[in-house]
Amino acid sequence: MGVSGTDKAAVLIEALPYIQKYNGKIVVIKYGGNAMVSPGLKNAVIRDIVLLTLVGVQVVLVHGGGPEINDMLKKTGKEPSFVNGQRYTDKETMDIVQMVLCGKVNKDLVASINRAGGKSVGLCGLDGELFKAVKLKSGCELGLVGEIKTVNAGIVNDMLQKGYIPVISTIAEGIDGNETYNVNADIAASKLAVALSAEKLILLTDVRGILENPGDENSLIKEVQLSAVPALEKDGIISGGMIPKVECCVEAMRSGVRRANIQDGRVPHSILIELLSDEGVGTMFI
Amino acid sequence: MGVSGTDKAAVLIEALPYIQKYNGKIVVIKYGGNAMVSPGLKNAVIRDIVLLTLVGVQVVLVHGGGPEINDMLKKTGKEPSFVNGQRYTDKETMDIVQMVLCGKVNKDLVASINRAGGKSVGLCGLDGELFKAVKLKSGCELGLVGEIKTVNAGIVNDMLQKGYIPVISTIAEGIDGNETYNVNADIAASKLAVALSAEKLILLTDVRGILENPGDENSLIKEVQLSAVPALEKDGIISGGMIPKVECCVEAMRSGVRRANIQDGRVPHSILIELLSDEGVGTMFI
Amino acid sequence: MGVSGTDKAAVLIEALPYIQKYNGKIVVIKYGGNAMVSPGLKNAVIRDIVLLTLVGVQVVLVHGGGPEINDMLKKTGKEPSFVNGQRYTDKETMDIVQMVLCGKVNKDLVASINRAGGKSVGLCGLDGELFKAVKLKSGCELGLVGEIKTVNAGIVNDMLQKGYIPVISTIAEGIDGNETYNVNADIAASKLAVALSAEKLILLTDVRGILENPGDENSLIKEVQLSAVPALEKDGIISGGMIPKVECCVEAMRSGVRRANIQDGRVPHSILIELLSDEGVGTMFI
Amino acid sequence: MGVSGTDKAAVLIEALPYIQKYNGKIVVIKYGGNAMVSPGLKNAVIRDIVLLTLVGVQVVLVHGGGPEINDMLKKTGKEPSFVNGQRYTDKETMDIVQMVLCGKVNKDLVASINRAGGKSVGLCGLDGELFKAVKLKSGCELGLVGEIKTVNAGIVNDMLQKGYIPVISTIAEGIDGNETYNVNADIAASKLAVALSAEKLILLTDVRGILENPGDENSLIKEVQLSAVPALEKDGIISGGMIPKVECCVEAMRSGVRRANIQDGRVPHSILIELLSDEGVGTMFI
Amino acid sequence: MGVSGTDKAAVLIEALPYIQKYNGKIVVIKYGGNAMVSPGLKNAVIRDIVLLTLVGVQVVLVHGGGPEINDMLKKTGKEPSFVNGQRYTDKETMDIVQMVLCGKVNKDLVASINRAGGKSVGLCGLDGELFKAVKLKSGCELGLVGEIKTVNAGIVNDMLQKGYIPVISTIAEGIDGNETYNVNADIAASKLAVALSAEKLILLTDVRGILENPGDENSLIKEVQLSAVPALEKDGIISGGMIPKVECCVEAMRSGVRRANIQDGRVPHSILIELLSDEGVGTMFI
Amino acid sequence: MGVSGTDKAAVLIEALPYIQKYNGKIVVIKYGGNAMVSPGLKNAVIRDIVLLTLVGVQVVLVHGGGPEINDMLKKTGKEPSFVNGQRYTDKETMDIVQMVLCGKVNKDLVASINRAGGKSVGLCGLDGELFKAVKLKSGCELGLVGEIKTVNAGIVNDMLQKGYIPVISTIAEGIDGNETYNVNADIAASKLAVALSAEKLILLTDVRGILENPGDENSLIKEVQLSAVPALEKDGIISGGMIPKVECCVEAMRSGVRRANIQDGRVPHSILIELLSDEGVGTMFI
Repeated sequence: MGVSGTDKAAVLIEALPYIQKYNGKIVVIKYGGNAMVSPGLKNAVIRDIVLLTLVGVQVVLVHGGGPEINDMLKKTGKEPSFVNGQRYTDKETMDIVQMVLCGKVNKDLVASINRAGGKSVGLCGLDGELFKAVKLKSGCELGLVGEIKTVNAGIVNDMLQKGYIPVISTIAEGIDGNETYNVNADIAASKLAVALSAEKLILLTDVRGILENPGDENSLIKEVQLSAVPALEKDGIISGGMIPKVECCVEAMRSGVRRANIQDGRVPHSILIELLSDEGVGTMFI
Repeated sequence: MGVSGTDKAAVLIEALPYIQKYNGKIVVIKYGGNAMVSPGLKNAVIRDIVLLTLVGVQVVLVHGGGPEINDMLKKTGKEPSFVNGQRYTDKETMDIVQMVLCGKVNKDLVASINRAGGKSVGLCGLDGELFKAVKLKSGCELGLVGEIKTVNAGIVNDMLQKGYIPVISTIAEGIDGNETYNVNADIAASKLAVALSAEKLILLTDVRGILENPGDENSLIKEVQLSAVPALEKDGIISGGMIPKVECCVEAMRSGVRRANIQDGRVPHSILIELLSDEGVGTMFI
Repeated sequence: MGVSGTDKAAVLIEALPYIQKYNGKIVVIKYGGNAMVSPGLKNAVIRDIVLLTLVGVQVVLVHGGGPEINDMLKKTGKEPSFVNGQRYTDKETMDIVQMVLCGKVNKDLVASINRAGGKSVGLCGLDGELFKAVKLKSGCELGLVGEIKTVNAGIVNDMLQKGYIPVISTIAEGIDGNETYNVNADIAASKLAVALSAEKLILLTDVRGILENPGDENSLIKEVQLSAVPALEKDGIISGGMIPKVECCVEAMRSGVRRANIQDGRVPHSILIELLSDEGVGTMFI
Repeated sequence: MGVSGTDKAAVLIEALPYIQKYNGKIVVIKYGGNAMVSPGLKNAVIRDIVLLTLVGVQVVLVHGGGPEINDMLKKTGKEPSFVNGQRYTDKETMDIVQMVLCGKVNKDLVASINRAGGKSVGLCGLDGELFKAVKLKSGCELGLVGEIKTVNAGIVNDMLQKGYIPVISTIAEGIDGNETYNVNADIAASKLAVALSAEKLILLTDVRGILENPGDENSLIKEVQLSAVPALEKDGIISGGMIPKVECCVEAMRSGVRRANIQDGRVPHSILIELLSDEGVGTMFI
Repeated sequence: MGVSGTDKAAVLIEALPYIQKYNGKIVVIKYGGNAMVSPGLKNAVIRDIVLLTLVGVQVVLVHGGGPEINDMLKKTGKEPSFVNGQRYTDKETMDIVQMVLCGKVNKDLVASINRAGGKSVGLCGLDGELFKAVKLKSGCELGLVGEIKTVNAGIVNDMLQKGYIPVISTIAEGIDGNETYNVNADIAASKLAVALSAEKLILLTDVRGILENPGDENSLIKEVQLSAVPALEKDGIISGGMIPKVECCVEAMRSGVRRANIQDGRVPHSILIELLSDEGVGTMFI
Repeated sequence: MGVSGTDKAAVLIEALPYIQKYNGKIVVIKYGGNAMVSPGLKNAVIRDIVLLTLVGVQVVLVHGGGPEINDMLKKTGKEPSFVNGQRYTDKETMDIVQMVLCGKVNKDLVASINRAGGKSVGLCGLDGELFKAVKLKSGCELGLVGEIKTVNAGIVNDMLQKGYIPVISTIAEGIDGNETYNVNADIAASKLAVALSAEKLILLTDVRGILENPGDENSLIKEVQLSAVPALEKDGIISGGMIPKVECCVEAMRSGVRRANIQDGRVPHSILIELLSDEGVGTMFI
């Protein structure tokens, strides 16, 4: 990097008001997509998180893991099956989901954060009864897909207080029987942000954010007012897979989270750029 | 149960001095074998642990999971392979080991303890850098089998202090590279007991304990002095798979754990009977 | 005791939900009558209390001491005198009451609890200004018999917090002059239970509880709803010395104590059986 | 009092360095003799103690009670009996001793301190196992007279920490059986002062202190060096009942108490004058 | 001083209820005038403060410094200038005011308190943003004279909690620009007393208090009810420089300070006499 | 600044290991010379300090103030006078020194830090008896110039613990009389760094550091081993005003400070560049 010492100082000083703003605050990051698949991007995310922790931000990382689940299902001879975009989860699939998320993706992230100098702990919705769910009511049978009913953030707060970076897998304890449920990671992140009174919720995606002109990545809408969401949905500007993500952001902010962001996980260090510099990335809800 | 109210009180009063003895103390239980496989025995172990927690004992549960690992390997078309009684662990096997232990066995135990009224959290050797290991040096190639080099019990103490029952999977972070290692659960339990200054280490097995006459279950030796171990090994009374278990007990006690026990996990509630009644079960090292 | 190891475990496991229920809760026990006089029963009460403390119950023991007071009065050549069932207490008698309760009965109980492995402290209504009273207004002159006006439970909470089992003598500081008053131990226990927000108040008596058929010990009424008390009094089922005891229970529960029990102190370990097993003893108000 | 406002301020200002000296320090006062018998002197002692507490001194009051014990013995038809100046204490006498000290003298002091605005608690050697003793070995049979073997000052420190003024009766739990023992109050005060690392031990007596000329109250020796004690004993200047009191002071200081004083309890407010003014009273060991 | 030991004790005992009253309470003293100028009086004030601290009063000292400011202005060749009794404060004067108050008067007081055995820290309205002000709106131009808008007593509470005696210079940070303002010390003391929920505000002046007959020092009015103030002002009994001081007292008490006093700083130890003896000095508002 | 978002992130990530290194550590900065005189440089220093605080560094700022003292002396008609490079300090000069340092320079810095979003408190050597000194023994008469004898860092630690940035003026309380002394700020910073067990001492100067070739600013020696200092002094590479500054660094490190730096205060943000980037500035002692 050809940045001079003076410019380095300027960058750090530019970060000053942002560090002041987020100091001691909780930021919940939903981590998935390309940012999880590419080793380089993954490495950047992890270093962002460790840096944020050091400047006093309390980061909670909620992760997905679709591709790894699919890989494992295939290894065991099962074909992944989706209904209306949601994974059909029979008992056998649920076992694989739990194993891959809680046992593989989660603990690998923990190890990576530790190796980068952080102090991390891997949890799932069963630990300390973090998430409790019932079977999701849906038009079609989805199997063990759950809808979160209660969030008991005690264990996450305990961990933050002891200085750990909590990494969370989104499975939940059933309260309508003895089953364990697969729950949507965006929704889990949103509900956890609410329970933690987080300052910010960040959803990392594989698009730049909400695009004025859906086909044109240069037409990013940088800020969207909550009240403008219905019109944008009606106009088809928010559409498809973006709709549930936007709903998560809206719901979080309506329930007390101060800000929510949908941003591009394909940009290295997009978390750091968003939180600690003048450049915003993605779409922020205001 | 046809026990009268008076006899019930007598049993509780008999437990009094034992409760006094273990109150506020740490007991590390290595949980494996039949006690993990049979639902009835598993249920008894979980209730024992919740009860012990309520009477002020700080229980840490270290678990194995061989059968589940074998099942999963088979599902993915891999044949479990053992060298001198130890699992040969290539990279693909290690992934399965980690997934099954940390993602399935561990979190299922956590959910069961929570449902029984405890407050539990599932951890592995990666969380908070609990276990760090190097590749085990052995006469034959075992792949990613590790030897624990450091135990950082901070996270386990943090959890105990916050009132959680820690359930521990025995994989470890490599310090000789970026690998994760499979480590022996008996040894991990023993080393963790030392790091925690535990009052007692209990190894649950599928035999009654050390037998005077190896073929005769009625010839149980109830107490063995540490100094008598070499002679018992020489005489073949301690032999086969019992040798490494006995070594774990001896090592733990030599390093400060007050008592170690090898006992029969096939007896329902054997933990409770051992800790809170006049009846000892299994072999205690003194 | 011919109870097998397995049955012992079953008894302990049966106690599990009760221990969970009372863990960290305060139980106030009014201790008097035969349970105080018979060395065997006294010993059982003390061991019950020490055990309850160990399983996390915060026990407060409020004691009487009529027979010892009478003995001492006789030794000094005074004849005990009662008016309508209440002790007539002149200044000289009050001195004896205070000496016997606070100096003898109380401290002997403290020593016994300590010897049984508890950690106890003996207090009276004067310590930390626990009980303040005025002269009881009554149809007939009773001398220095007081009616509690304020309960300052600070000292009892301080002691519980420091891990002591408080043993309480029921004399009170007069706020209508410089006198010390003798106060009724059942009422004092009831009012203290209220001030401590106790989970349970237990009055140990020399009868089995409220009897459907007062002459027949087998006609015990196991549960009485508060709302049913007036009818039971009208029907004479609650009568005589039972009336003020029932009033103490009703008053305590109306003021926030969750449960109150009148039970038979003549049954060894009746406290333990009541609190930690499926068998109830005596009459519980609900 | 005809002291002007200005002179009042001067007295308070004179107290300044003494208050600085004793602030936060523990002072153990052995209280007995005339200061306990005369209501006026008693009242002055109590106000001194409350004042000292307010200026930050942590006062512990250890009391005797010989005359009250004798009165009570006589009321029960027993003649007090002494052997070489020590009370012969059979079982019946011991009961009276315990009742009078712990039940009457102690609790009356507690009530008086409370009424003067202090916050007091009455304890004896049984509470929290403060004093443990064995039967005193002596040339002649003394019955239940004990020699303190261990002082567990935990309960006294707990009380000081919670802001209470502990008032202590000197009976002790026997460790050579189940008996309770009568122990010497001067010795108990001395040993307690050591266990509490007290700044000062004050023994209130009915003489002015050590007198150069035993018959002449004007020949008070104001300071005695520990090393001078043997010579003073040899010369008969320290003699009779003064010898054991001097030994208590010497022993306390040899074991870490900074200063010990023998002073005249017949002078009103002698504690205050000693601790907070330029006038010393009595004999100070240095 | 010819006061006997007994009289000394009497003075201390007389102080007892006052010490009880102010124990743990905050007293804010506005210190100025002769009491600051005369070395003897200054010395007496400092010893009063150290003594009060030792008996558990939390003293906060707010000081003025007019004469020292005038001296310094003159040394730099500037003539002090006053408009309607308030100092005209141009930028250059403000620099002198700040230097003299915060750098000289304040730190000299700190050193004096330390030398007298206290533990003191010197602060001004800039430290921890204690006082924030805007330019005082007045009929005539006064320059950098400010009106306090916010009091952030956090730093004063932090200091009291750590055991320091805070000494406060009354300059304030401007919130309407980057200026620093000179603020009235009586008003600052009053507002600080309110922010600290002080028990008492004492304004030391060079008169005896409010005089019935303004020319006659023997006509002191010892107590004035807040409701009587308007009439006293109308009658000219409260007049001239006394009016704003009385307003400070009224305002403080209306906003929660329990008592306010205007008293004569020319009487040595008048603070001690007022707070710890039966003699009141000056005029107390009730 | 034309730095891209990606480059900004790179700068922040480069800072990561340095932030980890200094997190929770104490850095003492001696602030003087041009960095104090130029408003732009001063502003940069203040923002550096606020940023460091936010990333978890505990900064203590020790300041000089020669030019302001000279200005004020001249305003009062006194000519600054120096003997061998040290200010001759008569009583009148000392008053000016104290006023200017503690009242003006110190409090202006506090206000600037507060306005930049920090939380600051201004202290001098008198507050909490931070610095105690005796008259400096020197070949020539220097008046009230002191040599620090004791550093009582309690108040600085108290402030750091409460989250304040302490700004320190270097005057000291005399322990050889009642005088206040002027003490050298470099030495005070060095001794304070030792007392605080600081991680780093930074002396800001008006030169680039130690120059191999004193006339050539490009000949900066970036690292100097403590053991090499005597030779560098002998060779004249360390000479003149650099000698005492180097001695301060050597002394600090010999007494436990981990690192010391002499660096150029004329470079904007040189503190930030030194502490949080790969570029070192100035000369570091190792």
